[in-house]
Amino acid sequence: MNIKPLGDRVVIKKVEAEEKTKSGIVLPSQAKEQPQMAEVMAVGPGGMVDGKEVKMEVKVGDKVIFSKYAGTEIKYDGEEYTILKQSDLLAVVE
Amino acid sequence: MNIKPLGDRVVIKKVEAEEKTKSGIVLPSQAKEQPQMAEVMAVGPGGMVDGKEVKMEVKVGDKVIFSKYAGTEIKYDGEEYTILKQSDLLAVVE
Amino acid sequence: MNIKPLGDRVVIKKVEAEEKTKSGIVLPSQAKEQPQMAEVMAVGPGGMVDGKEVKMEVKVGDKVIFSKYAGTEIKYDGEEYTILKQSDLLAVVE
Amino acid sequence: MNIKPLGDRVVIKKVEAEEKTKSGIVLPSQAKEQPQMAEVMAVGPGGMVDGKEVKMEVKVGDKVIFSKYAGTEIKYDGEEYTILKQSDLLAVVE
Amino acid sequence: MNIKPLGDRVVIKKVEAEEKTKSGIVLPSQAKEQPQMAEVMAVGPGGMVDGKEVKMEVKVGDKVIFSKYAGTEIKYDGEEYTILKQSDLLAVVE
Amino acid sequence: MNIKPLGDRVVIKKVEAEEKTKSGIVLPSQAKEQPQMAEVMAVGPGGMVDGKEVKMEVKVGDKVIFSKYAGTEIKYDGEEYTILKQSDLLAVVE
Amino acid sequence: MNIKPLGDRVVIKKVEAEEKTKSGIVLPSQAKEQPQMAEVMAVGPGGMVDGKEVKMEVKVGDKVIFSKYAGTEIKYDGEEYTILKQSDLLAVVE
Repeated sequence: MNIKPLGDRVVIKKVEAEEKTKSGIVLPSQAKEQPQMAEVMAVGPGGMVDGKEVKMEVKVGDKVIFSKYAGTEIKYDGEEYTILKQSDLLAVVE
Repeated sequence: MNIKPLGDRVVIKKVEAEEKTKSGIVLPSQAKEQPQMAEVMAVGPGGMVDGKEVKMEVKVGDKVIFSKYAGTEIKYDGEEYTILKQSDLLAVVE
Repeated sequence: MNIKPLGDRVVIKKVEAEEKTKSGIVLPSQAKEQPQMAEVMAVGPGGMVDGKEVKMEVKVGDKVIFSKYAGTEIKYDGEEYTILKQSDLLAVVE
Repeated sequence: MNIKPLGDRVVIKKVEAEEKTKSGIVLPSQAKEQPQMAEVMAVGPGGMVDGKEVKMEVKVGDKVIFSKYAGTEIKYDGEEYTILKQSDLLAVVE
Repeated sequence: MNIKPLGDRVVIKKVEAEEKTKSGIVLPSQAKEQPQMAEVMAVGPGGMVDGKEVKMEVKVGDKVIFSKYAGTEIKYDGEEYTILKQSDLLAVVE
Repeated sequence: MNIKPLGDRVVIKKVEAEEKTKSGIVLPSQAKEQPQMAEVMAVGPGGMVDGKEVKMEVKVGDKVIFSKYAGTEIKYDGEEYTILKQSDLLAVVE
Repeated sequence: MNIKPLGDRVVIKKVEAEEKTKSGIVLPSQAKEQPQMAEVMAVGPGGMVDGKEVKMEVKVGDKVIFSKYAGTEIKYDGEEYTILKQSDLLAVVE
């Protein structure tokens, strides 16, 4: 992917419902503010962000849980992605 | 559990009313914003979080009191969990 | 008491009106946001809390004045307690 | 006085209008948010407060000007006092 | 003047319109939130204020421009003064 | 360009829809708060900004994604530009 | 000019439309919150401001772009000026 997030941002791609079932997470679809699962597509360099040292703890390929309304959605080559700060990721699913 | 919380987050599972009685805590059920008891299921690594060094003080298996509306609820393998920051935990019940 | 507050939190138990009179403090009962007197039941370890070093200055048994609506109320073995941060305590009464 | 303020708090007692006139300060009584004069009755230890080193600069007996609505009012042995942070005191009147 | 401001506060006395004209500043009287000119009557010691080192840069006698609604107004010996933080002063007029 | 941004600001120029398609990014035009693509025209010196050391990570010519409503729009020689802080840039597109 | 801004403040004087055209900047007059061009008339000493070291990066005579509603407007010898913090200046035009 040729989108390089700045600072402590990451680019993620939402994982579809079918995959979610396979990995064992079921997210109630009727709830509007539920967290969602996604795959990390690109990771910023971290470093000094807003005067604070940030170490990136996720890597490309990680499955992560994030709060659905965090970040900014973009379209790229017909696919939808979200750019958000690493601190908006809640957990990694292994 | 294969959910690994990021930063200073923990995954907890609410303890049912029966268990609460056994451990001696009675939480009034009619109150909407009452704290609740839970068991810690997974603990993030801590470290630098938002520019501040955080040391994790709870461990898997701890019974904790937390504020009911803190954190984000997820479903995993049919069970409900909450992901929240350690600072949203009020106390450990021993 | 087997409730161990986390960080800079303390567990307190409100002192009844009779005791308040004995210790010399009269708190007008009609005022809704009046401070209240309480006894400290458990004290957290302090240390780094939200990136700041906190030294606990109260100990179990201290009579303290606190703002009535600070903290979270819990019931334990039929008794009511409040968990709040040490900084929400205003003074110790000796 | 056996009330020991915590952290950077002080206990003050409002000075009556007659005394105010003698010390030369006249505070318009009709204004609701006017500052008021008071005498310092007890002074906290200062030190690290909310992660910042605070040095207490007032002492018991000081006449101070404070903003009327700062702090928490308590009654003690039939007298009214206010517990507030030193930073809510505006000036010392000598 | 026997009012000693605490911390980074100063006591100022508003300069009347006639004086303003002489020193060359004309402040439109119809505007409600216009800055005003004043003379510095007393200066606090500065030092650590809210965890930050503050060096006092104005001295008694300085003519200053300040934002009209900053600070707290007091009456002293029949005169009106304003106590405000040095950072609410915008400029010195020489 | 003879506009020199101050501190951690950059000057960017929005990239037209045609160019966006070529570089592979499609931004839905009907969405009002969508991010937009732009080219960096000028970069501030960075350094201490609001008490924090900021290192500039973008350079003139970079294609960047930014949140459409961040920053301030100006017109210069008939062209429109936006001045915004580097932290309002989400990612670089390579 | 005998107005000496305090801290990290500067005094600026708005540049008229004719001058703006010559220096190549056209600012749409119908927009209410557009940035404006100005000339720097006086510069504060910088140094420790609100606990942060601020280095002044503009000098008297600089043409700057600033956000129209930042700062405080004053009249001096019949001319209008604005006193604002250096961080409210967006860019220098050379």
